Amino acid sequence: MPYFDAASATPLHPLARQALLAALDEGWADPARLHREGRRARLLLDAARESAAESVGCRPDELVFTPSGTHALHTGVAGVLTGRRRTGRHLLVSAVEHSAVLHAAERHAADGGTVTEAPVDRGGRVVPEKFAGLLRPGGPEPGEATALACLQSANHEVGTVQPVAEVAAACREADVPLLVDAAQSLAWGQVGGDWALLAASAHKWGGPSGVGLLAVRKGVRFSPPGPRDERESGRAPGFENLPAIVAAAASLRAVQAEAAAEAERLRPLVDRIRQAVPERVGDVEVVGDPLRRLPHIVTFSCLYADGEALLHALDEAGFSVSSGSSCTSSTLTPSHVLRAMGVLSEGNIRMSLPRGTTAEEVDAFLRALPEAVRSVRDQLKPQEAASAEPAPTPSEASITVDALGKRCPIPVIELAKVIDRVPVGGVVIVLSDDEAARLDIPAWCEMRGQEFLGAEGTEYRVRRR
Amino acid sequence: MPYFDAASATPLHPLARQALLAALDEGWADPARLHREGRRARLLLDAARESAAESVGCRPDELVFTPSGTHALHTGVAGVLTGRRRTGRHLLVSAVEHSAVLHAAERHAADGGTVTEAPVDRGGRVVPEKFAGLLRPGGPEPGEATALACLQSANHEVGTVQPVAEVAAACREADVPLLVDAAQSLAWGQVGGDWALLAASAHKWGGPSGVGLLAVRKGVRFSPPGPRDERESGRAPGFENLPAIVAAAASLRAVQAEAAAEAERLRPLVDRIRQAVPERVGDVEVVGDPLRRLPHIVTFSCLYADGEALLHALDEAGFSVSSGSSCTSSTLTPSHVLRAMGVLSEGNIRMSLPRGTTAEEVDAFLRALPEAVRSVRDQLKPQEAASAEPAPTPSEASITVDALGKRCPIPVIELAKVIDRVPVGGVVIVLSDDEAARLDIPAWCEMRGQEFLGAEGTEYRVRRR
Repeated sequence: MPYFDAASATPLHPLARQALLAALDEGWADPARLHREGRRARLLLDAARESAAESVGCRPDELVFTPSGTHALHTGVAGVLTGRRRTGRHLLVSAVEHSAVLHAAERHAADGGTVTEAPVDRGGRVVPEKFAGLLRPGGPEPGEATALACLQSANHEVGTVQPVAEVAAACREADVPLLVDAAQSLAWGQVGGDWALLAASAHKWGGPSGVGLLAVRKGVRFSPPGPRDERESGRAPGFENLPAIVAAAASLRAVQAEAAAEAERLRPLVDRIRQAVPERVGDVEVVGDPLRRLPHIVTFSCLYADGEALLHALDEAGFSVSSGSSCTSSTLTPSHVLRAMGVLSEGNIRMSLPRGTTAEEVDAFLRALPEAVRSVRDQLKPQEAASAEPAPTPSEASITVDALGKRCPIPVIELAKVIDRVPVGGVVIVLSDDEAARLDIPAWCEMRGQEFLGAEGTEYRVRRR
Repeated sequence: MPYFDAASATPLHPLARQALLAALDEGWADPARLHREGRRARLLLDAARESAAESVGCRPDELVFTPSGTHALHTGVAGVLTGRRRTGRHLLVSAVEHSAVLHAAERHAADGGTVTEAPVDRGGRVVPEKFAGLLRPGGPEPGEATALACLQSANHEVGTVQPVAEVAAACREADVPLLVDAAQSLAWGQVGGDWALLAASAHKWGGPSGVGLLAVRKGVRFSPPGPRDERESGRAPGFENLPAIVAAAASLRAVQAEAAAEAERLRPLVDRIRQAVPERVGDVEVVGDPLRRLPHIVTFSCLYADGEALLHALDEAGFSVSSGSSCTSSTLTPSHVLRAMGVLSEGNIRMSLPRGTTAEEVDAFLRALPEAVRSVRDQLKPQEAASAEPAPTPSEASITVDALGKRCPIPVIELAKVIDRVPVGGVVIVLSDDEAARLDIPAWCEMRGQEFLGAEGTEYRVRRR
């Protein structure tokens, strides 16, 4: 039963499991205590920190273990914003950061700070010059400068690798610390470039859940949020998750050692998916930068398909994937990543291949996918058939389709159904209050070669070409 | 090799270990995902929450899992203080709360809030009427009332059980939510009384580290601190520490089921220690409430002994204990608990017996302790001998001892050496800048039946009786 959601979580790496079992016996005590059990725990913690620091490429005393990647990001953002608040209260983040960064930014804005989101190209990549252009140098008044910039090393939803080294150089130039969210890439190797902070999460690299890490380079002004605590340099309060930390460090070392070989194995599989899916399933947009990408993530969207229904169909066929479609989120809005890229979000599927994924598993998926998509699209057919007029003549210069109250992918299906009924040059007006329509109607126009005239409130205008 | 520091951490309960291993295979995926691995993880998380809620005595939707007990306390305190900030910014805590609560209080004060510490008696217990008297009802101006009160269920350093039910009733009467830190007692059973919030930590009850819990009763105004997050009702951001949560819930259920029998077994062992230590080792103060106490914690202080040296001597003899003496803390101040109780802090030893501790282990400790104390006291003897005058005559009406720059237990030793040189009614003045002296000189006077006249700056005055 192939599991293709490694970007969410992976099973424990065998070495992590071994390390965890050993550390459960040796490292359960409080490393702050002076007795032998405490000293043994302290030795394990110190060794894990040294190992992880080596994997990250920082000094052991620059690295603390946190309860999760989210905690590491929240602490990293808040710590610098507080530490540098006299310099400025401006925060620059890319628009495709993990929600943990965006929620921290939201919090900063609610507290009176200023936040800028750096846009990305259609591949999901920030343009270094544009990012650099949004950095604010210190003005004549104190408090105007950019306190912190955040850029992920690679995107978690579409696999696009970001130009961290170039952005880090620009940040260094502007004297702004750069925090890198390395959650998706650290398993594949160290993050190059002159970053100031780095955060990551162990359950993404085959370590246990409950462990993140935060590296803060010496010299970065940092003031931990929350009440003070003596553990982890005051940057991660509470009893260390020790046996798990040992397992996390062991796993990171192991996956990085295997990374080059594994990447070489997985890349062709991902390429195969990127090529085969549009061939086998019509009306598909493969998203993410085609070249500058992680070796294991591939994402595509299927027109006229409901993302949640597609997930379930694939799940029934034995394949576990994830989706950025609005219907799979609790807020009924499409993934902010797809939104920032301006690509189709309906019928969205992210596959992230865990280590050891075989060509057979990928082939089995490629065989099953067309039927899964067809079945999901067919579910919407009856409705389509019922409302279809017999032999429509392209005569009306303008047609209005009322899709108010209808959710993705219905508005796009309704649009596709009537576009042939207006003459070339004619206009279809779609009324939709679905959040996804804002993304999917323009994306449909681009895929179909139709002209998107714009949206006003709930009214979308499309000219037939 | 007996380990007597269960109040810091205990090895995994066998059932917790079993549950952890099973959950590593079944519960590593993201419980927020829709695929089968995610659903399986979600089922485990839901079941763990139901089980833990039953153990705590709350509804499952009132309970969230946090990365540690410290996190649960920090979140609980900050969540209520923010949620009720319009009602008032006064926080009432007992003086003997865990440092996580006191640090949260410190943070509140730094943010402009008001904090009151409720005193305890010499046994470490709050007096319900006094605690209730410190609650502030809403005044004519908004913002004056007590927003939150915090009381531990039992003290972590001396084992004293607090009158939670009485205090909870008083808080309910005053319309103030009470947060109970149940870290030390939850393993022994549910916390009775009408509390509003409850926090605890799994590695205290034989669960893994990396798991705490926070229960917030319906109806309590609560606004989680930090950036928003969809997990754990927004009260504990970040990926759930899932396999560990399963193990924590299993362990809590198991230790509570064994609690009555285990308490019956341990209580006589603790009583034996409380009785035997003063008999076998002279100049000892056994601290903590003699009756209203946890079954497994016993604490005593040894005059003229260095706490850290004593820890090491016991460690060498094969016994792991902890200490609240100033010399064992990074800040060189004695435990705030002992300070609040006004008891001797030098040569302090806390024993907390893990489940399964045998009478033989306790007897072995009682046999080894006198020699350990003697060896530690002897280390200070040469110095004492060197400065001792031959056959002192009690003639001078007043002697001044300069112990400036000397650390605990030297100032008390110096005092003890000269007290016989002044006549009855004469005064010894001890000059000391050691934090511990503030506690230990009055405590010595009480133990020795001498009259403590008071302290001014670094000058302590003692009248011989």
